[in-house]
Amino acid sequence: MEIQKIPTPALLVDLDAMESNLRRMVDIFAGKPARLRPHFKNHKAPMLAWKQLRMGAIGMTCATVREAEILVEHGIDNILIANEISGEWKTDRFAQLSHHASIMVGIDSVANIRELVRAQKKYGTRLQVVIDINTGMGRCGVLPGQAAVDLARVAVEGGLTVRGLTGYEGHLQPLQPGPERDEKVRAVCRSLVETREMLQADGIPTDIVSTAGTGTCAVSGQYPGITEVQPGSYLLMDTQYIDRGATFQRSLAILASVISVRGSNHAVIDCGLKELSAERGLSTVKDLPGVKLKALHAEHGLLELEANSSQTLQVGQKIELWVHYGDATVNLHSSLYGVRHGQIEEIFPIVH
Amino acid sequence: MEIQKIPTPALLVDLDAMESNLRRMVDIFAGKPARLRPHFKNHKAPMLAWKQLRMGAIGMTCATVREAEILVEHGIDNILIANEISGEWKTDRFAQLSHHASIMVGIDSVANIRELVRAQKKYGTRLQVVIDINTGMGRCGVLPGQAAVDLARVAVEGGLTVRGLTGYEGHLQPLQPGPERDEKVRAVCRSLVETREMLQADGIPTDIVSTAGTGTCAVSGQYPGITEVQPGSYLLMDTQYIDRGATFQRSLAILASVISVRGSNHAVIDCGLKELSAERGLSTVKDLPGVKLKALHAEHGLLELEANSSQTLQVGQKIELWVHYGDATVNLHSSLYGVRHGQIEEIFPIVH
Repeated sequence: MEIQKIPTPALLVDLDAMESNLRRMVDIFAGKPARLRPHFKNHKAPMLAWKQLRMGAIGMTCATVREAEILVEHGIDNILIANEISGEWKTDRFAQLSHHASIMVGIDSVANIRELVRAQKKYGTRLQVVIDINTGMGRCGVLPGQAAVDLARVAVEGGLTVRGLTGYEGHLQPLQPGPERDEKVRAVCRSLVETREMLQADGIPTDIVSTAGTGTCAVSGQYPGITEVQPGSYLLMDTQYIDRGATFQRSLAILASVISVRGSNHAVIDCGLKELSAERGLSTVKDLPGVKLKALHAEHGLLELEANSSQTLQVGQKIELWVHYGDATVNLHSSLYGVRHGQIEEIFPIVH
Repeated sequence: MEIQKIPTPALLVDLDAMESNLRRMVDIFAGKPARLRPHFKNHKAPMLAWKQLRMGAIGMTCATVREAEILVEHGIDNILIANEISGEWKTDRFAQLSHHASIMVGIDSVANIRELVRAQKKYGTRLQVVIDINTGMGRCGVLPGQAAVDLARVAVEGGLTVRGLTGYEGHLQPLQPGPERDEKVRAVCRSLVETREMLQADGIPTDIVSTAGTGTCAVSGQYPGITEVQPGSYLLMDTQYIDRGATFQRSLAILASVISVRGSNHAVIDCGLKELSAERGLSTVKDLPGVKLKALHAEHGLLELEANSSQTLQVGQKIELWVHYGDATVNLHSSLYGVRHGQIEEIFPIVH
C-alpha cells in the first residue's frame, strides 16, 4: 500500500535504513567477545526484537517488568531488566515470569534484596539479579568497588543468584564521538571489570558485565571483560542521536497530513504532542527545504514556510517529519509502518 | 483496594475533587441559554463522558475522527469534531460514522469541502459541518465575517449541511482571569455571533455557535447568541490550569514508587516521560514539602530533597505527583484510577 493511503499521523520506519543499522551493529560486534543484548524500551516491537535475536543478539534488555512480560509472552528468553523494581505487585510478577524464562533484574539496595527474597520464597523460584552500578550518571546504582561487593554479599546470603553487573553511562551518550569520550567510556568499563574481579576474589563468581548504549557500545564492546552491551536507539535512529554524531542512519519519521493552510506561509498538520514528542526538541520536516515545524500543540503541529521558500503547502498534502526523540515518540503509537520506495511493506505492532 | 497496592506508575483522579468540578460546571450553566458540550480529548474516558452527559451535557466535542469513533462506539450521540480533517481515510470514516450518530466536523477551506462532498456522495449520507473561525489564536479557521460566509456558501452549494460556527480562543486560556481577559473573550463572542447573523442574512440558517475552553467558558456562556461551550480540562484539573487561576479543584495525580535512594537527598521513582508529560513543565510532588521533582528521563523521575527538609525517602515508598499537563499525560495511560480516602473506588478505562 502507498504511504499516502494510511491514516495519519503514522509512525514510519525506513526499512533500508533500519536494515542497514541492524547489520552495521552486528558487523561492529563480529568476532568481539562482547555480545549484543539490545534494549527493548526504544522500539517495544516484539517483531523487531526477534529480528535482532535472529541476527545474533543473545537476549534483550528492558526497563520495566511490563516490558519483560511482553518479551516473555512473545517467546523471548534471556532478559535483563536493567533497572531496580519495587513493590509487591512488581516483585511478585518478576518471580512469576522467572518460571517462564531466564530473567535478571537490577538491584542497588538492601531494600530491593529484601523484596526479592520475599518473592523468591513465595514463588519457590530461583531469582537472578545483577548489581546496578552508578557509572557516573548519578541516577540509580551503587558505586563500583566495595559498595557493589557488599551488596552482592547480602544478595547471595539472602539466597538470590548474583549473575553480575549492569551499568549504563547515560551521561556519556550526548558527548561528541572522539578520543576524549572514548577514554571516559574505557574508564567506566575499567571500573566495572575491576568490580567484577573483586566479586570473584570475594567468592562470588559472575558471568555478566553488561553496559553501554548506542553512542558508546563500539568502545565498550572492545574492552576486555565487558561481556555484553545494551544499545537500543541504533535501530530506529532519531535525530537527537544523529545530532550527537551517531554513525547509524536516520530511520524514524512521522507521517502527517496538512489540515489547514493560512496565507502563503502557515499550515497546520494533524500531528501534535500526543503523537510526536517534543520533550527533547522539535522535529524537523523531511524533504521540504524551507518548511519548519514551529510548534506542537496537543493535536496540531504548526508549520511555517521561510519567506523565500519555493514550497507551497496544500490541504491534504502528506508531510514527513524526522522524529527527534524516538524513545518518547514510539511510546505514543501502536503500529510502526515499515516503508520502502514509498510503499508500506511491513507493519510492526508496538506493544504496551 | 488501597492505592498502595496498585502497580505504579498509575494515573489517579481524586473523586471528591472531580465530582466537585463536575457539579460546579453544571451550576455555572444552570439557567443560561448556552449548553455544555465538554471536550473528550482531555480525558478520553467514555465513562466520564457519560457522567458529563447524565449531568446535562448536550453532546461531546472531540479533536479527531478516532475520538468520534470511540464516542459513537460507546453509544454517544451529538458529536462535534472541532477540527478540520483531511485525507480519504478520515473523510470516509467520518461519513461512515454519520450513519450511526449526529456528527459535525470543522471546515476552513474549499479543499475540506471538496473532500467531504466526495465522501457524502460515496456514502449517501448527509454530512454536517461547522465553519471553524480563527478567533485570534492563529491556528486553523477562517476569519470571522465575510470569509466565513463565503466558505459556508460553498459548503451549502456542495450539498453539505452547515450547522453553524465553532471557535476556540486558545490564546486567551493562559491569561489570568479578570476584567481584561473577560473583555477579550466577549470580543471573540461578538465576532462569532455577528458572523452567524451574516450567515442568517445570507439565507444560511444555523443553530450552533460553539466556543470556549475551561478558562473562558463562564464568560462566553453568558454572551447572548453563544449556544454552547466546549470546556475539557475542568474535570481532571491539572496544575497548569490552576497556575492560570482556574477556580476548579486540582484532581489529577500520578502515583509512583521510589526504586532507588542515593545519599540523603536524592531518590529515583519509576515514572518518567513515558507516563508523565513534561512538555509544558515539570510536575510537583504532593504532600511532601521539601521534595522536588528535578528531572524526568524516559522511565525515571529524579527527586531531590531540599537541604533543610525533614523528609526521608525510602525504596518502595509511594509518591504522588500533581499532573502539570493533563492533556498529554492522560494520553499515556489506559486506566484512570478513581480515589477516595486512599482507596481505589473506581477505574475509568481510557480508550485510544
